[in-house]
This record gives sequence, structure tokens and C-alpha cells, in this order.
Amino acid sequence: MKVGDTHYRSIWFDAEADRIKIIDQRWLPHEFRVVDIDTLDEFATAIRDMWVRGAPLIGATAAYGIAKEMRRNPSDAALDAAWEQLHETRPTAINLRWALDEMRQVLAPLPEEARAGAAFAEAAKICDADVETNRMIGVHGLEIIRKIAATKKPGQPVNILTHCNAGWLATVDWGTATSPMYHAVEAGIEIQVWVDETRPRNQGAQLTSWEMNRHGIPHHLIVDNAGGHLMQHGQVDMVIVGTDRTTASGDVCNKIGTYLKALAAHDNDVPFYVALPSSTIDWTVNDGVREIPIEERDDREVTHVFGRLEDGSVGSVQISPDGTPGGNPAFDVTPSRLVTGLITERGVAEASREGLLELFPERRSAA
Amino acid sequence: MKVGDTHYRSIWFDAEADRIKIIDQRWLPHEFRVVDIDTLDEFATAIRDMWVRGAPLIGATAAYGIAKEMRRNPSDAALDAAWEQLHETRPTAINLRWALDEMRQVLAPLPEEARAGAAFAEAAKICDADVETNRMIGVHGLEIIRKIAATKKPGQPVNILTHCNAGWLATVDWGTATSPMYHAVEAGIEIQVWVDETRPRNQGAQLTSWEMNRHGIPHHLIVDNAGGHLMQHGQVDMVIVGTDRTTASGDVCNKIGTYLKALAAHDNDVPFYVALPSSTIDWTVNDGVREIPIEERDDREVTHVFGRLEDGSVGSVQISPDGTPGGNPAFDVTPSRLVTGLITERGVAEASREGLLELFPERRSAA
Repeated sequence: MKVGDTHYRSIWFDAEADRIKIIDQRWLPHEFRVVDIDTLDEFATAIRDMWVRGAPLIGATAAYGIAKEMRRNPSDAALDAAWEQLHETRPTAINLRWALDEMRQVLAPLPEEARAGAAFAEAAKICDADVETNRMIGVHGLEIIRKIAATKKPGQPVNILTHCNAGWLATVDWGTATSPMYHAVEAGIEIQVWVDETRPRNQGAQLTSWEMNRHGIPHHLIVDNAGGHLMQHGQVDMVIVGTDRTTASGDVCNKIGTYLKALAAHDNDVPFYVALPSSTIDWTVNDGVREIPIEERDDREVTHVFGRLEDGSVGSVQISPDGTPGGNPAFDVTPSRLVTGLITERGVAEASREGLLELFPERRSAA
Repeated sequence: MKVGDTHYRSIWFDAEADRIKIIDQRWLPHEFRVVDIDTLDEFATAIRDMWVRGAPLIGATAAYGIAKEMRRNPSDAALDAAWEQLHETRPTAINLRWALDEMRQVLAPLPEEARAGAAFAEAAKICDADVETNRMIGVHGLEIIRKIAATKKPGQPVNILTHCNAGWLATVDWGTATSPMYHAVEAGIEIQVWVDETRPRNQGAQLTSWEMNRHGIPHHLIVDNAGGHLMQHGQVDMVIVGTDRTTASGDVCNKIGTYLKALAAHDNDVPFYVALPSSTIDWTVNDGVREIPIEERDDREVTHVFGRLEDGSVGSVQISPDGTPGGNPAFDVTPSRLVTGLITERGVAEASREGLLELFPERRSAA
């Protein structure tokens, strides 16, 4: 999407310079740094140290990492070694593994001299497929926003609350939760976005705010505590969030705090939507609260906050007393009963087994 | 309560030094600074610039400010001028005005030579009355904790979640929400406290964590987003929060985000208690959500976070992009239907008009 007047993807191949370019997201929102990554070590570092983050973007980055390596050494041994090195950067990221497997499957049968070209083509295909999936999420989500806009008085924006960053920075472009918002703006619908700051890592404050700010979408940053009050007072027309994993019955695992917003939406009759590519549906899991293990992360994320210091440099402050331990569950599960609908690339599904199977009938036999 | 091995109040008269001592709370949890305040200007600064905060403590500080001034100049003019200067430090603080009126009412009829002595006695009485009120809240709240403790297996603590700081630092001693916790510890009941950090001002991270830490109560600091997940997984046995204002029908106005925790508690059958001195019941208001105006505060509180820098100094970091506005409602209202009980100095009331009138029958005629 746009950064000022220029349209960016989160990763792209600069053919002229023969370079893969990414936005080094560690410095956002304080600095916008575009960097080249070239060697396998650089790709591994960019993924491991979170210069790029978000499942689709990690996958796309890994795909280009393989492609670059094939240019250097297209042997079977190099392909396997690249797969290994990139995979171990974030071993639990399912999308990373999926992209690496996809690349190897395409490349392994080819003669060595054909591999580099095919690898760049395949990496580009992975990127374009992600963009298209997210675009379709936006097309379907736009219709929901359009209906709400029709109920507003002239000049009144549709107020949309979102949590965390399921934005274009987490994908190759459009984002998931943000795609309906970008589409609404393109369609000339007035919106205003309440951006939850999303402690502990502040993806809302750092990334979603920056996206809105740079694309020119009216928005306000709010603390995670504020959404319930805003809903009680009619200041939120809908919620759209992303998800890391949705169960076959429509339970939604997403960034910690999502469940609290879903409860408040339900209590105030505010529609609560989840935007997701169907690749994040886990058809093997039903009861999200009971079955999905939740990662407990370093408590330094709770006790410290990252930002820009008064002298312009970036760093962290400790907010708590020495010796106070933090508890840091990274995700929570929103039961399907609190979800109004699941916005996928195929359309909007009811958050239930039956609703999902209607959109994905090919899963009926498996389920 | 205790700071290490020493018992402190948040304000006290050091008779030997003839000084009023307070904890300068602006530096907590990073520095524990006890300071003398002596002149009227110093008292006014301490209240206005939030060296002390919390309704009961502000009132107590103002009372001692009058007392000190009477020692210097016990004239009617000085009494009135002191009232004015202290009142304008935080003109919307009801408790401040109440304490100042109380002092003037006691002192005005007295001859000048009797005023200083009477003023010190009255200020001490105001402090002691606050301590006694909070102690009784603890006595009644303890019984609730005791019943929950009886359902736990040996060695399992009662897990209590709290939001913001309704602790001894906001009162003269004991606190309101924390008083049952301190009483439980004194009674030998094992507890573990989940401390919500309480964005945007982080009173949980800065003050409640510090109280627990220094008194030696097991606790964990969590982000405001985490409580719902913990409740879904049986890790919270009860919630106790304070309140700024409770309506005659039992709606509870408290720090922003309280409502979200009440929703999660209700959804998971976790008892949700509010601890309050009866002086904070507003008998003139019924529907809290509709009738209580909510203060919108400076958005710098949202865009910046205060803490200790790596070099040991204290300061703020900006977490959001330049140009992103913040929305900052400071309080929200939890409807009485989500409140299990109101813990007052007279006992535990059902959160309803009838429940409150049973404990405060003298209000029946007025209501």
C-alpha cells in the first residue's frame, strides 16, 4: 500500500539492481528503512531477527532466499542446506515451512541450470498469490463496510476497531484485516479506524498506526483498555481483526486481548469480523480454547516498552519495579459464538463448522 | 503497608522533626523518595503535580497543609487563603474539597491561638478515619477470599486479578482493592496477584506492582490484554478493583479497561468484586453508562510511555508515529449486572439499589 505517494509491497525484487528489497520493520514507526538482502545468511537474519514478520511475508521472504541461493549454487546439496537454514530461523512458523516445501518441490525435479530462473518465478508466484488472496478478502469485506456505511448519516465515517497488525506489513500487500479498510477508502467510503496499541509488543501503535498514517486513512491510536467504553457509547460500528489460526468450528486464535474486544462487541451488538486467508484454518482442531496451546513469551516484553527516546534514538524503558515478574501469554482464543463472520478469499462464512464447510465444500469428506 | 521491613503510611507527621512526610510517588517504582513538605506552596505543588494522588490521600495532604499554615498564621484570612490555594490545585477532586471544608468548619469557630493544635488533631483524625475505613473493607473482603481459599488444594494460592492502583499509595494506608489482599496475607492465606499494567498511565506496573513487590506478596505483572485468557484457563479465582464513583444502582465507574475485565469475569464465572469506601457512592446517579461524563485526557498519555531508561534515569518513549492522534477516555463504567458484590466498610453489598440500601438504610428516605 502507500507510503506517502509511493506504492510499496513489503518485499519486492528490484530487477534492475538484481536485489531483493524489504522494509526493515524493526525501526517502524520511527524510521522507514528499505534494505537489500542478498546472501542466505542475510535472509536468515531478516526472518529470525524479525526485520520481516507476519506469516505470509515470512514465507515470501524464505522463497526469495531460496531463489537467490539457486543463482549462486543450484545443486541439490545447496537447495537442502538453504531449506534447513531458513527453516530453523522460526521453526514453528507453519507458513515458512509451507513456502520452503513449495520451492523445493518445484525445483528438485529440474536440471540445475533451470533452477534459478524457476525459483525466481515461483517466489514471485507465491507473492502474487498472497496479494490476490488478500485482495479478495478486501473485496468481500468491503461489502460489509458498504452496508454499514449506508446506515450512517452523511459525513459520518464508519468507525472500525482493529487489534494488532494484520496489515500489509504482515503480508506482501493489502493485509488481511486491513484489506477491507483499504478497499473502502478506494471505494470512496469514509472510515475512521480505532487502532488498539496491542501490548505487549505494540504492533498497533508501531505498525497499524504507521500504515494508516502513511496511507492517509483517518485513525486514532487507543490503549487496549479503551475499546469497551467506545463500544458502549456507539463509537465503534464494527471490529475487524486478523487471526493466526482458526479452528474448523470457527474459534479464532489471535493476538492476546482479541477475546476481550469480542466480548465487548457482543455485549454492545457491534459486529465482530475476522479476516483470514483460508490457509490459516486448522481443520484438525475444533475447540480452540481447550486444544490450542498458547505460547508464553519472554516477560521482558511486559516489563519493557520500545519507542523513540527524546534524543531521537530508539530504545526501551522499564515500566515496572526490579524483581516483579511478568506473565506473558501471547495469544488468546475467541470462541466462535462471539464472531459475527469470517471474511475469507472465497467470501464471508458464518463462524461455525457448517458455515466454513459451505465455503470450502472440498473439506466435507475430510471433516 | 510494608516497604521492605518498615511499615509506612503514604503521609505522616514526623513529630520529632515537626515535619509532614510524604512519598514522592512520581518516581515510583524506580526510586523510593520520602520528602518533607512544609510551606503552603509545597503542599499545593505536591497535590497539583501528583507527588501524591488518590482521592483519600489528596484530602489528607490538604488537611495537613491547612494545619501547617495555621501554625504560621492562624488568622481567618490565612485560613481562607489556604483553602483557596489548595482547592485550586485539583478543583474537580471531590475528596479534596471535602477535607478542606471539614478543616475550615472545625477551625473557623475557634480562637486563633487554638487553631494550630486543633488543625493537627483534625488532620490526624482524617487520616485515621481513612485507615479505619480501608481496614474494614479488608476485614469484609478477607471473608470472601477465605471462602475461595477453602476450595483450593493445599499449596495452591488464591489468584486475584486487579486493575489500576486502588492500593495503599492511593489512600493513607491499606488501600481499597488491596486491603483484602493485605488482610489475606496477614491471615496466612496464600494469594497470588495478577497486576494489570493499566495503560495508559501504568498505575498497575508502577504502583500496584511496587506495593506487592515491597510488601512481599507474590504477584505477576500482565498486560491489560491478558486477563481474559487467564480467566478462560482457570487461572483467576476472583477480581477485586477499586472505583472512582459508584452509582446508587451499583454501576461502577473506574479506570478505563475495568469493564473489559468484568465482561471476561462474567463470561467465565469468575467473581468480580469492587472495593469502595461508601463516600464514593454517588446517590444522585443511577445509570452510570448514560449519566457519568468520562474525562478525555491528553493523548500524550497514549502515544508516550514513562519508565526507566537503560542509563538509570527516568523518561518517556514515544511508541507511535508522528502525526497519529490518540484517543484517551480515562474511565469506563461497568454495569452492575457484571458486578458480584461491592465491598464497603460496612460489609459486602449486592450491586443494586436494594443491595446498597440494605447496608445504608439511612439513604432510604433520600432515595
